[in-house]
Amino acid sequence: MMRLQVPGYEFLSQGSTLHYSFSGSGVNVLSALARFGHTGSLVSTLPDNPVGAAAVAYLQKLGISPSYINRSGNYVGMYFLENGFGARPSRVTYSNRLESSFNTAGEGTYEFEEIAKKHDVVHFCGITLAMNDSVRQLMKSFAKAVKDNGGTVVFDCNYRPSLWGEGGYEKAKSHYEEMLYLSDIVMMNEKDAMFVLGMKTEKKERQEQVMDLIPEVAKKYEIPVIAGTNRSVNEDNTHSLCGFLYKKQSFTFSKTFTFSVYDRIGAGDAYTSGIVHGELERFPPEKTVTFAAAAGMLTHTVVGDTLMSSENEILRAMTESVDDIER
Amino acid sequence: MMRLQVPGYEFLSQGSTLHYSFSGSGVNVLSALARFGHTGSLVSTLPDNPVGAAAVAYLQKLGISPSYINRSGNYVGMYFLENGFGARPSRVTYSNRLESSFNTAGEGTYEFEEIAKKHDVVHFCGITLAMNDSVRQLMKSFAKAVKDNGGTVVFDCNYRPSLWGEGGYEKAKSHYEEMLYLSDIVMMNEKDAMFVLGMKTEKKERQEQVMDLIPEVAKKYEIPVIAGTNRSVNEDNTHSLCGFLYKKQSFTFSKTFTFSVYDRIGAGDAYTSGIVHGELERFPPEKTVTFAAAAGMLTHTVVGDTLMSSENEILRAMTESVDDIER
Amino acid sequence: MMRLQVPGYEFLSQGSTLHYSFSGSGVNVLSALARFGHTGSLVSTLPDNPVGAAAVAYLQKLGISPSYINRSGNYVGMYFLENGFGARPSRVTYSNRLESSFNTAGEGTYEFEEIAKKHDVVHFCGITLAMNDSVRQLMKSFAKAVKDNGGTVVFDCNYRPSLWGEGGYEKAKSHYEEMLYLSDIVMMNEKDAMFVLGMKTEKKERQEQVMDLIPEVAKKYEIPVIAGTNRSVNEDNTHSLCGFLYKKQSFTFSKTFTFSVYDRIGAGDAYTSGIVHGELERFPPEKTVTFAAAAGMLTHTVVGDTLMSSENEILRAMTESVDDIER
Amino acid sequence: MMRLQVPGYEFLSQGSTLHYSFSGSGVNVLSALARFGHTGSLVSTLPDNPVGAAAVAYLQKLGISPSYINRSGNYVGMYFLENGFGARPSRVTYSNRLESSFNTAGEGTYEFEEIAKKHDVVHFCGITLAMNDSVRQLMKSFAKAVKDNGGTVVFDCNYRPSLWGEGGYEKAKSHYEEMLYLSDIVMMNEKDAMFVLGMKTEKKERQEQVMDLIPEVAKKYEIPVIAGTNRSVNEDNTHSLCGFLYKKQSFTFSKTFTFSVYDRIGAGDAYTSGIVHGELERFPPEKTVTFAAAAGMLTHTVVGDTLMSSENEILRAMTESVDDIER
Amino acid sequence: MMRLQVPGYEFLSQGSTLHYSFSGSGVNVLSALARFGHTGSLVSTLPDNPVGAAAVAYLQKLGISPSYINRSGNYVGMYFLENGFGARPSRVTYSNRLESSFNTAGEGTYEFEEIAKKHDVVHFCGITLAMNDSVRQLMKSFAKAVKDNGGTVVFDCNYRPSLWGEGGYEKAKSHYEEMLYLSDIVMMNEKDAMFVLGMKTEKKERQEQVMDLIPEVAKKYEIPVIAGTNRSVNEDNTHSLCGFLYKKQSFTFSKTFTFSVYDRIGAGDAYTSGIVHGELERFPPEKTVTFAAAAGMLTHTVVGDTLMSSENEILRAMTESVDDIER
Amino acid sequence: MMRLQVPGYEFLSQGSTLHYSFSGSGVNVLSALARFGHTGSLVSTLPDNPVGAAAVAYLQKLGISPSYINRSGNYVGMYFLENGFGARPSRVTYSNRLESSFNTAGEGTYEFEEIAKKHDVVHFCGITLAMNDSVRQLMKSFAKAVKDNGGTVVFDCNYRPSLWGEGGYEKAKSHYEEMLYLSDIVMMNEKDAMFVLGMKTEKKERQEQVMDLIPEVAKKYEIPVIAGTNRSVNEDNTHSLCGFLYKKQSFTFSKTFTFSVYDRIGAGDAYTSGIVHGELERFPPEKTVTFAAAAGMLTHTVVGDTLMSSENEILRAMTESVDDIER
Repeated sequence: MMRLQVPGYEFLSQGSTLHYSFSGSGVNVLSALARFGHTGSLVSTLPDNPVGAAAVAYLQKLGISPSYINRSGNYVGMYFLENGFGARPSRVTYSNRLESSFNTAGEGTYEFEEIAKKHDVVHFCGITLAMNDSVRQLMKSFAKAVKDNGGTVVFDCNYRPSLWGEGGYEKAKSHYEEMLYLSDIVMMNEKDAMFVLGMKTEKKERQEQVMDLIPEVAKKYEIPVIAGTNRSVNEDNTHSLCGFLYKKQSFTFSKTFTFSVYDRIGAGDAYTSGIVHGELERFPPEKTVTFAAAAGMLTHTVVGDTLMSSENEILRAMTESVDDIER
Repeated sequence: MMRLQVPGYEFLSQGSTLHYSFSGSGVNVLSALARFGHTGSLVSTLPDNPVGAAAVAYLQKLGISPSYINRSGNYVGMYFLENGFGARPSRVTYSNRLESSFNTAGEGTYEFEEIAKKHDVVHFCGITLAMNDSVRQLMKSFAKAVKDNGGTVVFDCNYRPSLWGEGGYEKAKSHYEEMLYLSDIVMMNEKDAMFVLGMKTEKKERQEQVMDLIPEVAKKYEIPVIAGTNRSVNEDNTHSLCGFLYKKQSFTFSKTFTFSVYDRIGAGDAYTSGIVHGELERFPPEKTVTFAAAAGMLTHTVVGDTLMSSENEILRAMTESVDDIER
Repeated sequence: MMRLQVPGYEFLSQGSTLHYSFSGSGVNVLSALARFGHTGSLVSTLPDNPVGAAAVAYLQKLGISPSYINRSGNYVGMYFLENGFGARPSRVTYSNRLESSFNTAGEGTYEFEEIAKKHDVVHFCGITLAMNDSVRQLMKSFAKAVKDNGGTVVFDCNYRPSLWGEGGYEKAKSHYEEMLYLSDIVMMNEKDAMFVLGMKTEKKERQEQVMDLIPEVAKKYEIPVIAGTNRSVNEDNTHSLCGFLYKKQSFTFSKTFTFSVYDRIGAGDAYTSGIVHGELERFPPEKTVTFAAAAGMLTHTVVGDTLMSSENEILRAMTESVDDIER
Repeated sequence: MMRLQVPGYEFLSQGSTLHYSFSGSGVNVLSALARFGHTGSLVSTLPDNPVGAAAVAYLQKLGISPSYINRSGNYVGMYFLENGFGARPSRVTYSNRLESSFNTAGEGTYEFEEIAKKHDVVHFCGITLAMNDSVRQLMKSFAKAVKDNGGTVVFDCNYRPSLWGEGGYEKAKSHYEEMLYLSDIVMMNEKDAMFVLGMKTEKKERQEQVMDLIPEVAKKYEIPVIAGTNRSVNEDNTHSLCGFLYKKQSFTFSKTFTFSVYDRIGAGDAYTSGIVHGELERFPPEKTVTFAAAAGMLTHTVVGDTLMSSENEILRAMTESVDDIER
Repeated sequence: MMRLQVPGYEFLSQGSTLHYSFSGSGVNVLSALARFGHTGSLVSTLPDNPVGAAAVAYLQKLGISPSYINRSGNYVGMYFLENGFGARPSRVTYSNRLESSFNTAGEGTYEFEEIAKKHDVVHFCGITLAMNDSVRQLMKSFAKAVKDNGGTVVFDCNYRPSLWGEGGYEKAKSHYEEMLYLSDIVMMNEKDAMFVLGMKTEKKERQEQVMDLIPEVAKKYEIPVIAGTNRSVNEDNTHSLCGFLYKKQSFTFSKTFTFSVYDRIGAGDAYTSGIVHGELERFPPEKTVTFAAAAGMLTHTVVGDTLMSSENEILRAMTESVDDIER
Repeated sequence: MMRLQVPGYEFLSQGSTLHYSFSGSGVNVLSALARFGHTGSLVSTLPDNPVGAAAVAYLQKLGISPSYINRSGNYVGMYFLENGFGARPSRVTYSNRLESSFNTAGEGTYEFEEIAKKHDVVHFCGITLAMNDSVRQLMKSFAKAVKDNGGTVVFDCNYRPSLWGEGGYEKAKSHYEEMLYLSDIVMMNEKDAMFVLGMKTEKKERQEQVMDLIPEVAKKYEIPVIAGTNRSVNEDNTHSLCGFLYKKQSFTFSKTFTFSVYDRIGAGDAYTSGIVHGELERFPPEKTVTFAAAAGMLTHTVVGDTLMSSENEILRAMTESVDDIER
């Protein structure tokens, strides 16, 4: 999507300029993995006009290959972002994305078989399930092709209530379940289990709910790895983040990071990238989950949605105290 | 519409910031008339979100009353503008506007009777006819209400081929004719007569075609005033502009202005405003058409789509040589 | 006044650009009330030159009607603002405003009778009393006209020592008293009572002084409503704000808000607007004073002097915890 | 003075930022002479506040010594500049400068004797004569002190009609004459002779008028050197500039330079600086006047009021054709 | 190299910001060819630090693969660019590049054999010959490897006098000759033949010299294709450009394009790209040379060194008149 | 050096603009002393090109005289600065400075005898010792000349490990000792004593180490005044700073300041300036050390490396609580 952000702390009705960039769950995950030394392509559709060209240039800059980007349709989904300050939250205003190039690309647009054969891991985002039947169908076909070819399916639940509207959980459930049955690594938390999958727990604390429900999800949908985070906003505007990783019937938790926030958007994708990287590199679970949480933390400190740190910088952030200047 | 312009001469794929403003034929005409001392309101629909609020603030800044702006729907039509330079033309890329707030506002949205009673003049733009049946229907009802209440209907033909698609002229003809029958002041040129209305002429020169066809249009559709311009781009990148006014079976032509161009968009609307102002103030035809052409010229020299000059500044530009500094 | 602010944290002697806007107590209050759904006009004088035109455009953007703005004189009062950071305070440098258009507008400039008849509430700012005899006279005549026509006079004491110079309290007292006798809603705190009105108290704590002196003021000058705030700057650079409202011989206090500060200027005017809105809408005192304090808090978080929040956003800020992103 | 310029081509009522700098005739001449290798000081008064500090820093950056700048009073004169484009002239809007620090500095502020003793040349600007009696008195005392100490008095007539108001020429004449009698190098043209000094000529062409009147002025007021320019604005927006130098009863003319203009303000001061430099370095008249005209031309091509070229760059511009890139 | 450009028309001593980008002959040619649908890699060395990372991101954005970029050494060569205006030329100031990463990369840094095998065409720039013996050696080895593997060697003479210093032509000759003997497509003009290669002609006109000398060069060094341009700067600041192509003992000339210039740097590389593209696509000579010249013209109209136009846009620019807006 | 800073919080690989300024230990100390009313010159070498000219203009703006700046060589040392945020440290990337104008200026460049005679105090920075033998030699000759002429030598140890490389402490020791024997005021802390001078202590706490080692250094090298700071970074990102001053066998400590940090670079130089100013003005030690620490604190709150506060502002910061606005 195209992100149109008012610089500084003005509202749209005060300012006259916007900073634009292109992002989205897939872009963020691919870009982060590129920084960790992997190579990857975005499978999507962009219009064959100057806005599409700008998006392609932006993706290339992030190290993402545009080889599987189809160029057709009319426009890119957009959202406006007004930065909050302290007691005033940030505001996101979506412009129409129902007829975007991505959402109107029909069957046969992508060569899923070919792509699946050439890639080890494919990442899917639950937001896409909220779009329309055609897109959902494409997504499931692709996941199936990856599975059939022995690849790893990563699925980030990422349920957005405003996109599903009223009665959304019921509409969404079966689609999510189809994806979960195909997935090898799933990003989710206790809320997804309760609300999207309709599971029950008698626990009241988030941590207990996680420990109660996630093993049940893993078992029911036969998912080898489930990971997620527990975030809290502290009184002094800092955030705290603790990651979990459930694998082989066992939980591992990261240390809890507490930090100031520059830009909140995209931190979850950085966490996902950390988990995927850890799994690909066969890190021990402690290292994987702490690496992912540190990647998430650092992404809160950069401009834009995408992680900009190298593997080394994240490893340093896991252990060391903060320098004020590196020179 | 929301205009998103890349500053300077970069392409969208080079830059990272956009300058935004809100404009459109109606906005430009109203804003210019406000500068000439009239008061006016925009009749339109904007979303009830931060983008809509920004549009309202922008209109107010231009001196336009938002009293008749309905707030509903989801988004504002947008276009991206990349400035050309010399041999390289400017590029306009529209984002989807088919489901904009304006285009999805249904019957009963506006109180046309009430508005018609309270206003002397209402301006309509032919671009609107290209949108959809519902919008076309609203437009014609409004024009009829104005006519019935003794108001003056201004109609700017403004046929945009890309919006009508193939076979557009045939699709458009009857809609244009309905509007023309209702109109008191029409902005058009010889091309509209030939292509939209299907009229024939054996003349080859633009000027001759104008003098052949415009009287025929005025007669057939019983239009008291028809005005338009003849623009040419000179070899040294300056433009030349000459206006005509046809009224009471007689043509009046402005002097021909030659000038450098800063921003081309909106100059036609400034010309329209000049004609409307001249008619309202009962200027003699020579003054009206030269005032309108000078207004058009000055609008080429300012940032954005909208005329920023006072009546006095335009009167000065009609006659005097250019100062280099006013102090 | 025209506010000329160095962007970021540079000093005037480091930078080369300024951000400009137009504000002032009246502008801030009117703009906030416009956001709450009221309509209002500024009664003032601006020069008939490009600076005056810019000021008018800015006011219109804020939703303020310029109908009663007289255009004469030569210039607008200006001040330069250099932002402080942490241990370094912000600096305000006034340019000359003694001969501004506002301060040189003579008797007969404004039609106070007509304006008084058409408006329910008129807001006056004590800073104006510091200007010159002519302006003071105009202000009192206007307040009297409002009173005589049954309107509500709002008076914000706002005593600025630097404008009155040495012996200022004595010079100011009688002028303030004249205004207080005419007022229905007064914004003040215990310092105004002690220093401007020369009242005595044996209490040492601010809160006790307020509770001791404000009822005395209300009684002596027969003021139905008096409101004010108690602000403190905390060690971690956050501010705390608690409002009071004295009405019908009874005090009501808002909850104490603690928050980070982006731009301190104009927060008092937002508080005033909240009180006026609450009184106009006949909110119960608890709601009025907390609404006003929340409006003040939110205005600390926005760019510029003027409140930018809707009634709904303020109501949310009164009760809810902070979201990090609204999407 | 403080120059507050809207960047690009927006009007004050469109933009939100200003670019600021400090200039004035004296500043421009001193800065140019510093670039030619001379050292010089500004004799003026600036407020002892952040705006004054910014002005001092700016002057120092230009290579001007602030040793004789008195720090008192309240503010700096200011003007707003909106850039014109093509058919639309630039607009200068002055803010009040009648009570500026410079204009309110009283007798005894400056140590003219001491300054006169330490400097070879002092430059005076006719605009200053338009301020008030006190400033005029200071100016003449200073010129007299320079004369008495054997220094060279440079006087630039620079009559500004808007500052003298109606009947200005009569009010101004005696003051100008006093200065002329004290001067060694005078910058003027035929209009100054006719309008300010009330001289008569029967010639119609500018060039003839110059050749008729300037020798008469030189004779009457015993002025060793008089110089000036003849500027014309061409149809294609380029300007043409030709300088003259009258010395020892003989005229010398520069070649005529034709060039595009970026910023018109300050070019006259650059010309003055060229004449003064030529005289100080004892250039032959041909070289002096062409050097001055080339300096004037180059100052039209830079941002801001002040010449930024070295002596070498000007010498190159006198003779060579233009390179497109120097590398 | 890193290009550090002062925005607008300020000098380095006036401004405080720089716009940075990364370019160079190779970057420009590769980027242009990527836009024409080819894929290509830069063979170079960049430091393994944040500046190197920024360069890689920039190259990727332009569509250039960083696969053969070695990361070592300490810094990137840099130059400062101050834009000229009219009579004032642009200024380029180089910072030290003698110890840049590229210039200190030793033997064995690059796998020339492997690269040569995988690519059809390799482009070399004569500027590189001016660096040092080690770099010259690497360059010739690479060219030889390409030749030996049947690839096409493109060599742009691009002699820069300031880099070779005094007696440069003699120092340079043998190195240039070695490259010419290895080349298939050579970019040069009559000056290169006369000064670098020491050839003689009795013709006086540039065009005649070209027709006299280029065939001689082609014959002596057995070069299948030689191309170049004839540029002239017109009085109204427009430039005129005419390209030539010498192939199979026959000259072809493009039409002469006349146009306004926004940024002159990189236009020669765009011309080279056009020639290479024409040869790769087997365009007839007329089309190749006009395509190349049009590509050169359009690159004068864009921000930065690199061509930003698609093949289609260039084809349109070859034949059509200019639109003022494309919408 | 030239400081090239990415604005805001972007990385070099995200942004496209840089903010530039010129600084360095000497510049910072001179500039601060100029603000305290002293006059001073920088003794250095800058290239005779536009970058050198920009540096000179910048120094002049800061109030530093360029009289002793030699203009030769090719370039200025540069570094890139990317701002950190919270858990992410700032990054400094040096470009090559080994062949900078300063580092290649040979013997005889500066007239040390003459300069020493005309100045009371000369400040030297230990970073310079890391450059090369020639520069080291020049530095020691200069210090000796100052000593011989009765001036005060200020030496700031400022050991930078990355500049000396492996085995640096041993290489550096003798050079540092030579400077220490010549010095009157030395800036250092316990780490310099231990690592550079190889002294031993059995204490574990920083404060104890200072009290153990500094007197030993003072005695051994016969240094009248030694001063330094103890900085700590707190959990909430604030810093704490406490200064010490050792003089006449006695320690004085400042109060500990705790504050938010805007720009960390240059704070040490501000502290040095405070110590030098206190010594020159014969402040009592308590005042000197607290003045210096407050100067250091305030420099953390400003844009750029150089202190921007007046003596008065620092004196206020020593004692008063913080105002939020000064008006």
